[in-house]
Amino acid sequence: MASVDVPVALLGYGTVGAAVSRFLTESADEIERATGHRLRVVRALVRDPDRKRSFPPESGVLTTSFEEILGDESIAVVAELMGGLDPTYDYVRRLLGAGKAVVSANKQLVARRGAELFEAASQAGVQLRFEASVCAAIPVIKMLRESLVVTNVHRVLGIVNGTTNFILTQMESGASYANALEEAQRLGYAEPDPTEDISGADAAAKMAILATVAFGSRVVLGDVSFEGIERVRPEHVRAASDLDATVRLIGSATLVDGAVDVRVQPALVERTHPLAAVRGAFNAVMLQGDAIREITVEGPGAGGTETASAVVADLVSVIGTTGTGFLQNDACWRTLDRLPSGELRSPMYLRIEVDDRPGVLAHVAERLAAEGVSVARLTQHLLPAGASLDIVTHEAPVGRVEAALASIAALDEVHGEPGLLRLIREE
Amino acid sequence: MASVDVPVALLGYGTVGAAVSRFLTESADEIERATGHRLRVVRALVRDPDRKRSFPPESGVLTTSFEEILGDESIAVVAELMGGLDPTYDYVRRLLGAGKAVVSANKQLVARRGAELFEAASQAGVQLRFEASVCAAIPVIKMLRESLVVTNVHRVLGIVNGTTNFILTQMESGASYANALEEAQRLGYAEPDPTEDISGADAAAKMAILATVAFGSRVVLGDVSFEGIERVRPEHVRAASDLDATVRLIGSATLVDGAVDVRVQPALVERTHPLAAVRGAFNAVMLQGDAIREITVEGPGAGGTETASAVVADLVSVIGTTGTGFLQNDACWRTLDRLPSGELRSPMYLRIEVDDRPGVLAHVAERLAAEGVSVARLTQHLLPAGASLDIVTHEAPVGRVEAALASIAALDEVHGEPGLLRLIREE
Repeated sequence: MASVDVPVALLGYGTVGAAVSRFLTESADEIERATGHRLRVVRALVRDPDRKRSFPPESGVLTTSFEEILGDESIAVVAELMGGLDPTYDYVRRLLGAGKAVVSANKQLVARRGAELFEAASQAGVQLRFEASVCAAIPVIKMLRESLVVTNVHRVLGIVNGTTNFILTQMESGASYANALEEAQRLGYAEPDPTEDISGADAAAKMAILATVAFGSRVVLGDVSFEGIERVRPEHVRAASDLDATVRLIGSATLVDGAVDVRVQPALVERTHPLAAVRGAFNAVMLQGDAIREITVEGPGAGGTETASAVVADLVSVIGTTGTGFLQNDACWRTLDRLPSGELRSPMYLRIEVDDRPGVLAHVAERLAAEGVSVARLTQHLLPAGASLDIVTHEAPVGRVEAALASIAALDEVHGEPGLLRLIREE
Repeated sequence: MASVDVPVALLGYGTVGAAVSRFLTESADEIERATGHRLRVVRALVRDPDRKRSFPPESGVLTTSFEEILGDESIAVVAELMGGLDPTYDYVRRLLGAGKAVVSANKQLVARRGAELFEAASQAGVQLRFEASVCAAIPVIKMLRESLVVTNVHRVLGIVNGTTNFILTQMESGASYANALEEAQRLGYAEPDPTEDISGADAAAKMAILATVAFGSRVVLGDVSFEGIERVRPEHVRAASDLDATVRLIGSATLVDGAVDVRVQPALVERTHPLAAVRGAFNAVMLQGDAIREITVEGPGAGGTETASAVVADLVSVIGTTGTGFLQNDACWRTLDRLPSGELRSPMYLRIEVDDRPGVLAHVAERLAAEGVSVARLTQHLLPAGASLDIVTHEAPVGRVEAALASIAALDEVHGEPGLLRLIREE
């Protein structure tokens, strides 16, 4: 098949845009060997064409006019690397409507406006790919959409935020939360305002995308309950270590009897679980399904070249599948209910500080039993004042465990607020 | 795009063939949503059509005539699930020659006859896919060929044999080699004659395929040096634990200054390395490249449904890319030299049993220094008779370490044969 030049446009030409442009230029031969085509950046939308850039495009490529890209019929595929929702959403929708395939690295766009965009793509018969929007170069979207087509994935577990994983790894080595955050900021893993990462919001957007693709049903950001790592205390990290586990911010998407639960929260992960080995700013996603048992993929979840690599892979895949009907339908084909939050079943870890006197243990045990929560493991430690109870339950509906804990917290003998973390173990 | 029935033929209808047939039937809707097409098994080559089968095909599908499949022009894609080289090689080559795409789960076929088969596919302009030939459902071939096109992968490290990983994991928990092997056989992880797995030969075939795809240069089985786990002794496992590491059978493919080294051998893997967390019969492959740093993918490396899932994924990918020119060239586009075996650089672990008397350590240190091998860590343990030296070197050419060790083994004060294992650490 004769090689054909494929004109590509970029929206945005910052760090990622420049890296995409560099890959398409320097790896043109590799891409031609894989696809039979050469991809060439012919237009790139920027605000200021005169700014100095790390890999400047050929003269005449930079433009400030979106309409020029939209109206250029030679351009069949566009990579959106500008971020944000406004005007990005409008641009992407119009490009799809004009019959151009779009590759996006924008997790907020896909998580918040995916429904409208996929509909536009489907109507126009073009592809919208978004590998780089979740975990950069880790090809988890491609795995879900192309490799695990017949697998009925029923659970996705992920460490999908590198900033928080770095901080938790540092805390595991003895750092305080404050020092770990400072170190993350010094190394560029955390923003000056780290709220988006620390609060779990960033992870929640990624889990919404993963759940949507894995279960074929729309999950939007508002469907994802999330909490961050702010309330992880050094004693949780120490207790985890005593239990041969480690504290991680875990995103989970679970399909239970046709209902979906998606959440992000700190959890204890047992050492033998593949996610426990994920250290520093790395990300990992475990996919569990009927045919495959589980597959875990781990790597850097951020970075300019890593993100650009995923964008180029999507461009290559678009070129390799155009005209075949592949992945041109919206991945969402069914509507699934949300599982009421308390009904998700999991083993749980409870930490309760109590007076060291007779009868306390009995009171705690009664409250757990009253909610039908069964104890798998209990350790009592003496504290300077009183004692701490570290309890691991058998799998139970988390709502029942929360109810038991609320009732325990109300006991006279209990000090302060009890800690409650989900426990992730090998099944 | 209107849905079109795609007639598929299978060569072989055993465990994997029946599972492929079941997936194509039961997941026809999922496949149609992804590809716009329905895949239907219309012919399956078997020796005995009357044998009882777990998922019997429709009447008239089973045939004993290969020519019938070859001559059926409606069949555009064939899955080869019969194994072996004869007559399989001849069948696959003729199918490709006749313009039919082939998906194969046959690692011996791809590792030994890949060159001729890829040439035939390339000439006919059809695809030969082989995801299931390496690590079953773990989509490492797709990752290399489609996601990491611009990444310049320079190293592949893998645990690609589940049998040996299961045995080593059992030994880590205190089992003897003999008991661990027996347990593996009882659970069906090891064959009654386990030679192919235990010797490293199975892993070597998989590493040949991975190296070929990763580096774009033909690596055949004869290029892969391999040793098995027979000489792993309990004291190696204990020493690994003392060094905060674990013993694993590691396949490695390394590109060094335009030369290739591919080998399979037991190695010490530091606990912080992603491959150290791979337990039991699971497999994992780490890909290291310029743009991505490293991506590791882990999962079950064998099993009927896992293998069938990969075969179906390949069928779906063939349908999704037909006619676009994608992946239709032979992945091999360059000829690379083999790196002389001794020139691969790695940190190494040495275990030497010596007399417990003055001067021994100096003699050992001199021999290492004479070969330019620098010691990173040394521990001396008392043994019932004499002492053992556990030495970790800095990165050095393995040939120099081997030469130093040969000279050390010749010392009067040294007992028995020293142990030498490669050390794999996070970079």
